[in-house]
Amino acid sequence: MKKNLLLTPGPTQIPPYLCAELGKPIIHHRTPQFQQAIKEVIDGLKFVMQTKNDVFLFASSGTGAMEASVCNLLSAGDKAICVEGGKFGERWTEICKAYGVMPVVIKVAWGKDVNPQELKKVLDANKDAKVVFITHCETSTGVTTNVKAVGEIVKDTNAVLVVDSISGLGVVDLKTDEWHADVVVSASHKGFMLPPGVSFVSVSPKAYKLVEACKTPRYYFDFRKAKKAIEKIDTPFTPAIGIIIALQESIKRFKTEGLDPIFNYYAKLAKGARAAAKALGLTLFPDESCMSNALTTINVPAGIDGEKVMKIMRDTYGVSVAGGQGDELKGKVIRMAHMGCVDEYDVLTGISCLEKVLKELGYQFTLGSGVAAAQKVFNE
Amino acid sequence: MKKNLLLTPGPTQIPPYLCAELGKPIIHHRTPQFQQAIKEVIDGLKFVMQTKNDVFLFASSGTGAMEASVCNLLSAGDKAICVEGGKFGERWTEICKAYGVMPVVIKVAWGKDVNPQELKKVLDANKDAKVVFITHCETSTGVTTNVKAVGEIVKDTNAVLVVDSISGLGVVDLKTDEWHADVVVSASHKGFMLPPGVSFVSVSPKAYKLVEACKTPRYYFDFRKAKKAIEKIDTPFTPAIGIIIALQESIKRFKTEGLDPIFNYYAKLAKGARAAAKALGLTLFPDESCMSNALTTINVPAGIDGEKVMKIMRDTYGVSVAGGQGDELKGKVIRMAHMGCVDEYDVLTGISCLEKVLKELGYQFTLGSGVAAAQKVFNE
Repeated sequence: MKKNLLLTPGPTQIPPYLCAELGKPIIHHRTPQFQQAIKEVIDGLKFVMQTKNDVFLFASSGTGAMEASVCNLLSAGDKAICVEGGKFGERWTEICKAYGVMPVVIKVAWGKDVNPQELKKVLDANKDAKVVFITHCETSTGVTTNVKAVGEIVKDTNAVLVVDSISGLGVVDLKTDEWHADVVVSASHKGFMLPPGVSFVSVSPKAYKLVEACKTPRYYFDFRKAKKAIEKIDTPFTPAIGIIIALQESIKRFKTEGLDPIFNYYAKLAKGARAAAKALGLTLFPDESCMSNALTTINVPAGIDGEKVMKIMRDTYGVSVAGGQGDELKGKVIRMAHMGCVDEYDVLTGISCLEKVLKELGYQFTLGSGVAAAQKVFNE
Repeated sequence: MKKNLLLTPGPTQIPPYLCAELGKPIIHHRTPQFQQAIKEVIDGLKFVMQTKNDVFLFASSGTGAMEASVCNLLSAGDKAICVEGGKFGERWTEICKAYGVMPVVIKVAWGKDVNPQELKKVLDANKDAKVVFITHCETSTGVTTNVKAVGEIVKDTNAVLVVDSISGLGVVDLKTDEWHADVVVSASHKGFMLPPGVSFVSVSPKAYKLVEACKTPRYYFDFRKAKKAIEKIDTPFTPAIGIIIALQESIKRFKTEGLDPIFNYYAKLAKGARAAAKALGLTLFPDESCMSNALTTINVPAGIDGEKVMKIMRDTYGVSVAGGQGDELKGKVIRMAHMGCVDEYDVLTGISCLEKVLKELGYQFTLGSGVAAAQKVFNE
């Protein structure tokens, strides 16, 4: 009877009605029936992304679509600005380097958001930069970037804004067109409550000009092939059929419930988790101003090993949260995700289990104060 | 009550016990539990591939792993020999061209196998060719390449032999090490009876020397990252967790039943389908000598449109076979696959449905002669 609750920032839990979709017999992908699935998925993604841009589907996890955004926009020797405020920001720089692109790195202290004015300065000093890469929800730290503020600055330059919203889409607002996010990258295993294996990318006309000029070799992730295919409601290569079929169902939720109610829902879960942590006498890692609603990053009390907390929660009690990443945070924080298929009771379970383990490890606090604080928020 | 039978050369049917695996709750990938899955899958793949080489897993469909085999082995300006006997052979050439690799193309007439002596001549004339690309089971034509004969020739040269066995592995024998197949590419949705979304690649030490020397930019499909990760029983990026979990179960069949009985099983299905076609007065497209056991390619009688046959079988009766591809074969053949989760009764169903539709379209033959001929083979 051990719990099996995933409060990790990807993969996220799959609700039973989507498990059932994933367990259905397969259909062939070059059929009118599967074309209908592609159509609904693309329409639904455009709705969630709040965009009229083209949306492409790839059979890959999120990093594949990040690489696609580099190798379709930039050629060796090109300059790009990479905003690095955590592990996933660093990934943009790594991919750029792998392709011989010259990254101009804006280092943002972990737990803080990029300062738009600093970005403006860097853009002014690097007028030849072709792309600005940012991370919408930086899950390594628990920060949500102010994409709107960044977009306001980038839109008036020649640079194309590329947003990794793998952990943000469907959880935190992202007005792709209104905020001038030229390329948005996301994937199936976070806000969409499905297994990893499908990634999606929206591409604006401004970005598409770079695609056409780009000289980098590419094939599987080639946006030109993807565009040609999607115009015929097809994919250039065999798609991840099973997940796309289930995505049809997953996406319905966004149209049925509406985007704002869903974003408010996750905001409330995050508010509850934060209140609980504070009631336990714990502090939160990110700055209050940029704290993400997709996950809550809690500082583990001094003298307690965060890796141990995470492992006991997972292995003894079946409640999975994430530990800290990198030298900065390993052993120092736990990260509790709210994205995807998570509700108030799951947050309470996570906090309850955290209380139990902290007590076992000798941390002094009033047992039950965390769950009580979260409960109060949820009943507001 | 319409049938939903997939006799297509990928995706193939998913048996109910694997549908059930795919419908299970997800687990996190950075856990001891998932490491156990990776370990079992890699061990199982080495068993089916008959290799001691490293095996890497990617979240992609087969073409991603084909691209990986190009971009990890070859740099722009390098020379490679591409054997083209159908659509999938042509894909090797296309990928090479996308990467600025100079392909030396050996055109093989559709329906025939490459002549090893011709390959030897081309290798002698191109001693600087770094790779030879072949297709194990060319599903566009229904031919199985004699990989053993090719391997005997390539092994004594500096070139590395890369085999696309996406449609062959687990269906038709492939002795990777014994036959000197340096790189073997395959995927989850054919012999392994799962949805598309996971690809695998085995890499020999001879091939690995090219990987280290290769200057082509790469990230998601980088064999060096994959090697480092697999040594720690991990994947460099988020894997397609759901399919890998199910792959654990799918692979057990090969160890339980043994490889030769499985290859003989598919050989019998193919023999039955061929006998049925002949009994109906139809001819087979590929040469008898290289006819694949993974699928049977049947010439549609003159005056009958093969696309129509395929569509009526699928849309009216729910029995999916594939039509012909390219100018060479579109409308001229139907392709009935035997790979994956197919049994004698499925072949009978396919033949029975083909008989029904051919009769409707006015073709003259003795109704029932096809299924009777197949039945005789199955009861031999």
